[in-house]
Amino acid sequence: MAVRVAVAGASGYAGGEVLRLLLAHPGVRIGALTANSNAGQRLGAVQPHLLPLAGRVLEATTADVLAGHDVVFLALPHGQSAAVAAELGEGTLVVDCGADFRLKDAGEWERFYGSAHAGTWPYGLPELPGGREALKGARRIAVPGCYPTAVSLALAPAYGAGLAEPEAVVVAASGTSGAGKAAKPHLLGSEVMGSMSPYGVGGGHRHTPEMIQNLSAAAGERVTVSFTPTLAPMSRGILATCSAKARPGVTAEGLRSAYEKAYADEPFVHLLPEGQWPATAAVYGSNAALLQVALDEAAGRIVVVSAIDNLTKGTAGGAVQSMNIALGLPEDLGLAVTGVAP
Amino acid sequence: MAVRVAVAGASGYAGGEVLRLLLAHPGVRIGALTANSNAGQRLGAVQPHLLPLAGRVLEATTADVLAGHDVVFLALPHGQSAAVAAELGEGTLVVDCGADFRLKDAGEWERFYGSAHAGTWPYGLPELPGGREALKGARRIAVPGCYPTAVSLALAPAYGAGLAEPEAVVVAASGTSGAGKAAKPHLLGSEVMGSMSPYGVGGGHRHTPEMIQNLSAAAGERVTVSFTPTLAPMSRGILATCSAKARPGVTAEGLRSAYEKAYADEPFVHLLPEGQWPATAAVYGSNAALLQVALDEAAGRIVVVSAIDNLTKGTAGGAVQSMNIALGLPEDLGLAVTGVAP
Amino acid sequence: MAVRVAVAGASGYAGGEVLRLLLAHPGVRIGALTANSNAGQRLGAVQPHLLPLAGRVLEATTADVLAGHDVVFLALPHGQSAAVAAELGEGTLVVDCGADFRLKDAGEWERFYGSAHAGTWPYGLPELPGGREALKGARRIAVPGCYPTAVSLALAPAYGAGLAEPEAVVVAASGTSGAGKAAKPHLLGSEVMGSMSPYGVGGGHRHTPEMIQNLSAAAGERVTVSFTPTLAPMSRGILATCSAKARPGVTAEGLRSAYEKAYADEPFVHLLPEGQWPATAAVYGSNAALLQVALDEAAGRIVVVSAIDNLTKGTAGGAVQSMNIALGLPEDLGLAVTGVAP
Amino acid sequence: MAVRVAVAGASGYAGGEVLRLLLAHPGVRIGALTANSNAGQRLGAVQPHLLPLAGRVLEATTADVLAGHDVVFLALPHGQSAAVAAELGEGTLVVDCGADFRLKDAGEWERFYGSAHAGTWPYGLPELPGGREALKGARRIAVPGCYPTAVSLALAPAYGAGLAEPEAVVVAASGTSGAGKAAKPHLLGSEVMGSMSPYGVGGGHRHTPEMIQNLSAAAGERVTVSFTPTLAPMSRGILATCSAKARPGVTAEGLRSAYEKAYADEPFVHLLPEGQWPATAAVYGSNAALLQVALDEAAGRIVVVSAIDNLTKGTAGGAVQSMNIALGLPEDLGLAVTGVAP
Repeated sequence: MAVRVAVAGASGYAGGEVLRLLLAHPGVRIGALTANSNAGQRLGAVQPHLLPLAGRVLEATTADVLAGHDVVFLALPHGQSAAVAAELGEGTLVVDCGADFRLKDAGEWERFYGSAHAGTWPYGLPELPGGREALKGARRIAVPGCYPTAVSLALAPAYGAGLAEPEAVVVAASGTSGAGKAAKPHLLGSEVMGSMSPYGVGGGHRHTPEMIQNLSAAAGERVTVSFTPTLAPMSRGILATCSAKARPGVTAEGLRSAYEKAYADEPFVHLLPEGQWPATAAVYGSNAALLQVALDEAAGRIVVVSAIDNLTKGTAGGAVQSMNIALGLPEDLGLAVTGVAP
Repeated sequence: MAVRVAVAGASGYAGGEVLRLLLAHPGVRIGALTANSNAGQRLGAVQPHLLPLAGRVLEATTADVLAGHDVVFLALPHGQSAAVAAELGEGTLVVDCGADFRLKDAGEWERFYGSAHAGTWPYGLPELPGGREALKGARRIAVPGCYPTAVSLALAPAYGAGLAEPEAVVVAASGTSGAGKAAKPHLLGSEVMGSMSPYGVGGGHRHTPEMIQNLSAAAGERVTVSFTPTLAPMSRGILATCSAKARPGVTAEGLRSAYEKAYADEPFVHLLPEGQWPATAAVYGSNAALLQVALDEAAGRIVVVSAIDNLTKGTAGGAVQSMNIALGLPEDLGLAVTGVAP
Repeated sequence: MAVRVAVAGASGYAGGEVLRLLLAHPGVRIGALTANSNAGQRLGAVQPHLLPLAGRVLEATTADVLAGHDVVFLALPHGQSAAVAAELGEGTLVVDCGADFRLKDAGEWERFYGSAHAGTWPYGLPELPGGREALKGARRIAVPGCYPTAVSLALAPAYGAGLAEPEAVVVAASGTSGAGKAAKPHLLGSEVMGSMSPYGVGGGHRHTPEMIQNLSAAAGERVTVSFTPTLAPMSRGILATCSAKARPGVTAEGLRSAYEKAYADEPFVHLLPEGQWPATAAVYGSNAALLQVALDEAAGRIVVVSAIDNLTKGTAGGAVQSMNIALGLPEDLGLAVTGVAP
Repeated sequence: MAVRVAVAGASGYAGGEVLRLLLAHPGVRIGALTANSNAGQRLGAVQPHLLPLAGRVLEATTADVLAGHDVVFLALPHGQSAAVAAELGEGTLVVDCGADFRLKDAGEWERFYGSAHAGTWPYGLPELPGGREALKGARRIAVPGCYPTAVSLALAPAYGAGLAEPEAVVVAASGTSGAGKAAKPHLLGSEVMGSMSPYGVGGGHRHTPEMIQNLSAAAGERVTVSFTPTLAPMSRGILATCSAKARPGVTAEGLRSAYEKAYADEPFVHLLPEGQWPATAAVYGSNAALLQVALDEAAGRIVVVSAIDNLTKGTAGGAVQSMNIALGLPEDLGLAVTGVAP
């Protein structure tokens, strides 16, 4: 029997991507779709690519509307999930694509978000050590941020195998959909086409503590992360270039071997053959993460580059994958690793 | 039992898209993959987005390699399909994504292609009048060109209903994948990003006689087409702006009604609600064609705009849809109408 | 002695481009810069590419601030120019980049803009017949719209020489800067990258009556224009594909000759050598218009394609060129025909 | 009297940009233009944006053709400059945009380029300590690589002031014109639009030893550089994100002060106001370099981001600036710091 699913925030990019994936998922039936300012509109007017749902009308985001579903995806601005979740029964699987329940450290939450910490839910990145177990049977799931997904997949094996010093340097390029659908001048097509620019430099990006949390857990010690996100002239995709000093004795073979071992059985994380580097185009619309590793002997650093689709593996795909695990469905049900290219 | 499928020309854009769609098709098993200059390489090296087939090795395009499959897709440069098809048994379904068998008029073929006409096969555009019937049980299919698909879907109903004078004017913008994967300087990213340019102006584009063939059949009289293709800074998509003088007495309601009637039951062709215009992003990777119509009363013209993905509905999606019909499978099996956006 | 120039609307795209050109103009001194919502900000915060003016502070748009300059460029939302101009002395040259004073027919203005007609000023397209004379010594100039510039330059010679039937069909692709800097969801980078879409189809675009005005004047009879603008994934540029039925007896040679004659002495309008078609990249940041013509004998139509930079020749370059003429300066002073490519 | 200038390699991107800048330079007269495979063609056929030179015919690259000019710019594939330069008199200023004479260490040259070292010429980055002096009166100049320009300007002040540990980490995004105009499949528009990808990871990029040379000179000790270049979906621009561990006691104020001091009098290098970060769009076509600095206290790192146009300040602008210095002309003659945006 099909699982009944509602999506709150269906007019935004994350919510739209959840729906795109659910439309290809054989085990679900799409129920209520809600929005805030777009409530009352046809979905087709705001998400014209979701043709099979074009005639659906967006409802207001209320607990009444969302009740009565087996699964509720929340794709809301941060700070709004706790109130909604509180009104949904404990038997309902709530998958939060927002930030509210990702961090364990209340102090870090407050420092970066400036509000009271709502709590911590099981974390929707099954490829981390112990990650899959934590999701089985869960009824509350915090989907990771897009950057932390790309970076944690890239560096956790190196830290897990003790190959890297605990000071990571990450520069990541993101497509503009990561900045959401709210109209802001610096996100206009005229501004972003033909341009690369950084933002949140110097440690200020809200995804930094989430990366530190994940990498520190893998390393068994506190890892610092120097993180610079950049906005790239493309709609989707994250390319994360991650590096750290190699510990003494690390070899190129040992490095590669640690990654082969870490991801040998993972359906969605692929270490590319030697000599081939990830491109975000190859994962466009796909739930795959592509990785490649190198040991820069002259500089003494491990370099790992990962590519994901920020909306798919980085948000909605990770959410559906986590739902599958929580519900005991095949983990890859409805999720493609084939990208749309060129 | 799964249909066994081979793809000739698997390293190019059309062949790659056929494979992308076949990977999502529940009724097929992917067999031989062939190429010319890329034979011997892993598919993953040239089509990194086709992750499930990354380890497959490309073979040379020979009849031996292609034999023994139920269906063979040909995605070859024009002029090469006839020889390959001649060696494949009559029971094998051969779906040609190239131009060789699209035109009925040998003189037109020779004028535009400069070589002997190979023949005419059933035409893979089921939405044209009589188009679906011609494909049932077929074992040879000529898939339409991407521009003729967009333009014929846009104008055939107007001509079929006698609403338009037989002189069409078409300006279409295409993504660069329509020009193929052969490296030419004018197709470099540096050249195409930030630029729009026309080509084949003044009647010279090889897709023109195919449009004339389709629209004349719909009109029951010879239709001329002034066709200007333009290259747009995007990888995929065709936006075709098509117009013709309205016949006396045509009304906006009558126009809309003709299109509603023509496409009411079509799974892949959608007339958008009034006021909403097609965007190519909405059909990215999808087999849908989106249409909108207007009557410009001041200019006395019918204007129809269509958007398709040139690689999907415009090539590989049309090919798979035609295969489904020919084999008696559900026409939309494995074919999404959901686009990947934003 | 340098001409003292003020720019109202300096934070927008048109105003920014006026400033970019004035910075390279040897005969001017840049005075007051005004804005509305951005008043009080450093120009560098909103126009970071105008580095030599980065420290200038934007003032509010008032007659007091604008007074005392020899030339005032207005780059304001339509409907605001008349009030500002009324307060500036008759000796001040006012160059309006907006629509308010372009149309001669008050009825057409009211139909398309829904407000009272403010009047008609000399029209800043010197390449039209009589256009240059009308600008000499002028103290009020209405700069044409970007689309009418591209289309009028493309078709006026054909109409002037009596080669074309008075029913033009125009499909034009524009970069997103033509839609301005106000943040709207459909103009987000995420929406426009990878997508082509039409708007204002069926005669509704406000630039249509301006094209009709120009082409009718050239033809000496009423010309209708079926105009479809499309939004292209690029920041700048217009590619206009224009066609009309050829009058009996028109030849390819006669057509080409009419254009050679029309633009032989023009510094900014170039008919390309036969076989070469315009690309918008070639005029990026340049005040040139590139044209090519063809006679499609099978369809019986003249086809003319023009490429301009919508912000330069299509707005600010045309404005500076008109200023030069009005002030008796060399027409091309400070205006490059070299584009920035690739 | 105007300086007579020849450009060898005028059909490529670097040569085309040299010409674009020379067309705006009041002190030069453009003489011979040469090419290899494009010799015999009109320049307008291969560089349509250089409209004033469209009728010029490209000659073969020979010493005879290049002789008799005061200045010769070489924009040739690496390995070809020495032979050409040897035939030009010592009084001729030869400005080499290629790599041949950039490195001081013959061993490094051989390791990265696999051929014999041709020698070392004065280095065309006047903003480095002592850089300007070395160019005065020079008759041979090696223009830096585009990445080393961006990175050296970003990090030299930190090393010069002793603020950073000698292990730099650099991730840079480049527009595709940096890869040149030779048609290669991975540079097709279809491949690069919508995609970010790294290359030359792990120390293999040929620009690495040049960065090390410059930064080591600034630091007075050997600096290692972990360098990852990435290809971004844009035609022009480099955004370099550079970081290094801060030395003990470094403060944000001290860091900023070092950069203010280093570039206070530089016409082309601008430290942005606090809070504003560089975007490549702001330097499109401009010879400016924009910088911003941050101290990431949590990670203990100095982060410097620089933006340049790879073809302008990164190649041709640096070349013309160096020519100006060598010839005793005003350093900024003919060179704009205004970018073309949006």
